[in-house]
Amino acid sequence: MIKRALNVTREADFAAWYQTVITEADMAEESGVRGCMVIRPWGYGIWERIQRLLDDRIKATGHENCYFPLFIPLSYFEKEAEHVDGFAKEMAVVTHHRLVQKDGKLVPDPEAKLEEPLVVRPTSETVIGAAFSRWVQSWRDLPVLINQWANVVRWEMRTRMFLRTAEFLWQEGHTAHATVEEAREETMKMLEVYRSFAEDCLAMPVVAGEKPENERFPGAVATYSIEAMMQDGKALQAGTSHFLGTTFSSAQNIKFQNAEGQQELAQTTSWGVSTRMIGGLIMVHGDDDGLRVPPRVAPWQIVIVPMLRDVPEDQAITDYCKALQADLAKLSALGEPVRALLDLKPAKAATKRWGWVKKGAPIIVEVGGRDVAGGNVSVVRRDRLYREDGKLDSAVIARTDFVNDAAQMLESIQTTLHEQARERMDANITRGITEFAELEQAFEGEKPGWAEVNWAKPTGADLDQVVQRLKALKLTFRNVPSDASPAQGACIFTGAPAVERILVARAY
Amino acid sequence: MIKRALNVTREADFAAWYQTVITEADMAEESGVRGCMVIRPWGYGIWERIQRLLDDRIKATGHENCYFPLFIPLSYFEKEAEHVDGFAKEMAVVTHHRLVQKDGKLVPDPEAKLEEPLVVRPTSETVIGAAFSRWVQSWRDLPVLINQWANVVRWEMRTRMFLRTAEFLWQEGHTAHATVEEAREETMKMLEVYRSFAEDCLAMPVVAGEKPENERFPGAVATYSIEAMMQDGKALQAGTSHFLGTTFSSAQNIKFQNAEGQQELAQTTSWGVSTRMIGGLIMVHGDDDGLRVPPRVAPWQIVIVPMLRDVPEDQAITDYCKALQADLAKLSALGEPVRALLDLKPAKAATKRWGWVKKGAPIIVEVGGRDVAGGNVSVVRRDRLYREDGKLDSAVIARTDFVNDAAQMLESIQTTLHEQARERMDANITRGITEFAELEQAFEGEKPGWAEVNWAKPTGADLDQVVQRLKALKLTFRNVPSDASPAQGACIFTGAPAVERILVARAY
Repeated sequence: MIKRALNVTREADFAAWYQTVITEADMAEESGVRGCMVIRPWGYGIWERIQRLLDDRIKATGHENCYFPLFIPLSYFEKEAEHVDGFAKEMAVVTHHRLVQKDGKLVPDPEAKLEEPLVVRPTSETVIGAAFSRWVQSWRDLPVLINQWANVVRWEMRTRMFLRTAEFLWQEGHTAHATVEEAREETMKMLEVYRSFAEDCLAMPVVAGEKPENERFPGAVATYSIEAMMQDGKALQAGTSHFLGTTFSSAQNIKFQNAEGQQELAQTTSWGVSTRMIGGLIMVHGDDDGLRVPPRVAPWQIVIVPMLRDVPEDQAITDYCKALQADLAKLSALGEPVRALLDLKPAKAATKRWGWVKKGAPIIVEVGGRDVAGGNVSVVRRDRLYREDGKLDSAVIARTDFVNDAAQMLESIQTTLHEQARERMDANITRGITEFAELEQAFEGEKPGWAEVNWAKPTGADLDQVVQRLKALKLTFRNVPSDASPAQGACIFTGAPAVERILVARAY
Repeated sequence: MIKRALNVTREADFAAWYQTVITEADMAEESGVRGCMVIRPWGYGIWERIQRLLDDRIKATGHENCYFPLFIPLSYFEKEAEHVDGFAKEMAVVTHHRLVQKDGKLVPDPEAKLEEPLVVRPTSETVIGAAFSRWVQSWRDLPVLINQWANVVRWEMRTRMFLRTAEFLWQEGHTAHATVEEAREETMKMLEVYRSFAEDCLAMPVVAGEKPENERFPGAVATYSIEAMMQDGKALQAGTSHFLGTTFSSAQNIKFQNAEGQQELAQTTSWGVSTRMIGGLIMVHGDDDGLRVPPRVAPWQIVIVPMLRDVPEDQAITDYCKALQADLAKLSALGEPVRALLDLKPAKAATKRWGWVKKGAPIIVEVGGRDVAGGNVSVVRRDRLYREDGKLDSAVIARTDFVNDAAQMLESIQTTLHEQARERMDANITRGITEFAELEQAFEGEKPGWAEVNWAKPTGADLDQVVQRLKALKLTFRNVPSDASPAQGACIFTGAPAVERILVARAY
């Protein structure tokens, strides 16, 4: 049996394994502040890569970045009842603007109470809507296409690093349009940006589709999501895109004069992804040795570990590694310059190697005296860590061959991770279910995956009833996949003729 | 007399001119939330350029980015008295985590009061210090070199866009070291990063030096700053770097075992620049036609304005402009690909031209039917907007010549802005003052600039007295320039032998 780098396997305890990866890969840690985490350099480095690649795509689709206030006056929320109902229970509220010493303790100064309390933004539709109402007067001012990268706060009672934290980082796009058609087109365009970003950059297969009524964003006319399958079979909602109709334009008075000279309400959208994606990345690509980061989002794609022994020969090894790093940095892979790190920290080579295995650096290159003498390098690929005999698969390769092959190797790792995840997802979506009893059966096992079933799209109280029946099985609706086959036969919940196919799953 | 693009000049009312530039250049606006602004695309685009260029330099000096919580428990502040004294008066305090409806109004839910109030970070020494105390055990863990890009909140009573807002964006670097020497070296290294960044990227000449005791960051052993001269002669502190000694390591218990096996407190530093720099950029480079953005930080360096007239010939103009944009995008200037925008918004060409003049795009290229026919472009350089006869200096240039020269033109504009600002600063620092009465005289005029004077570096109550005398003249100490000539003669404040030279100025 192979001795693994982590002390817990996915099989034995998936939740414990997840926490262990986060700790052992130096991704994040508890901060001491309730519900908030510290994102450490390796975790934040992945977020920076996500930001860079996604921001390029957001800009390429015509959006500009702005920045709106962290604080939102209570009165802004009062204007939109459904929206506030959705968020009021989890809002951090600022009530004072000064501290004073009292009995040797710091307390909020009663003399410095705010006239109107401020909410720390849980999302920015209201405050951005107020700006849009200033910016939009005529059809010529439309569309308004903006995005912001920001922190938001939702006071969650049960938190879990990356997946559900009181404060998290995200981007939120907000747009205003003259027509329903244009706003709906925007909603779908950004859903597609998220879908292709998840697949191409995160190597994370997802299903894009529309959320049912009960899962809509508070205030939305329609909500779409991308859903990814974790290795325990659960679903993770990894991004959402909302068509908001005139909900916020009527609350915030976003009106324009159309070409015919009449006043109309603008049609708005919003869409976002967050640091939650990193939680998904871990649960899609991690293995029992830690994380495996797809090369496109790896802060360092190739890490060079010199095997130093505090002897005079060390200098030759270090020089050899520096030259190697310089040569690798000249390469291009996956459309960008290769990111190669020379790890010169004061620690043993074996400790460093396993540190990088746990962090999931795509390629680890070890260089010892023998490699230097032979003009070689010892290469470990994170996507194929062990040989069939269970030994670490460290291949001695001529240095020139490695430099020639490195870009292609990174591309191959990106593809391999994507294909592995795609095969797993495809193999774990059950499609043949025709009755509710079959659905119950399908979710009896340990890692049941998802089920795609025919349904009649009930609404209101009928839908609530179905949702409750699913809840009893710890199941939820995920979305109606955009590319699902047409519905056929009867709805497995109501028996009525089915109108579409919907995904059912346990979820994070 | 030239008719200017703005309706107020720097000469007539500098403060009104500043606000007008911000509005007319679409940089930012009031948000409706007290003390908070909305940063609009052109303003935020400049911030993104600052982030990109400065982040590269921060990483090149070995620092990694992290993210720490927005909220800091009160108890963290109680540990460091001097620090809390510095910030307690301007802290936003979160006291509740839920809202409820009461008498038809949303209010903080009394049932959801936090046991320990949370402060919205005004700066992160305390919460980052707590993380460092977990990360640092041995000398091998040092140095810790991290940085974060974040929003912070200081509840200022009088706010001014970019210069002083309740919420602002910044980067804050925090490091821990084994020795005083190393920590001091880090402090000076980052001061130099800021100095060279301001000069090279913002084209903003600055004076780097140490702040006197009364201007130190709360808890610092030594504070250094870069100071820039605005066009009204006032100083703007544009960045600071602090040597914190063991102030925070003793409060937060950042201890390590040294190579000899003994426990020691780490020596820490912190350093930051903020969106305030954008305020400085405006007041250094703006003119009576709006902003002038140095090419290195301009979101768009070249803006192409097609002169369309809703006629069939428009298509040929648009095609010509698209080809030009593509050719310009292939160029490199100032170490990066050229950023060229084709402005196709539905507005009149003249409106667009003046819009870009006010925004300060470095080069504006207009293309009309005659230009297309002749294979030309009409080029306006923002650093030389008018000819001697007062007419707009729009030069008809062969398209190929322009493409050949564009990179060099951008470099020339970067240099010109820098030189103009440098000359102005150098011309406005008075150095010959030997008595306090002369200082009073020097600051009687309208735009007095700065004075560099000999002083004896008094401390404690003696220093307070001097500070009060300056305050009566609305003056403050800025810093002791690192490159000042040696002190000579007597201190102009106390008559004691001078030990160094210090800058005195009015300041933002």
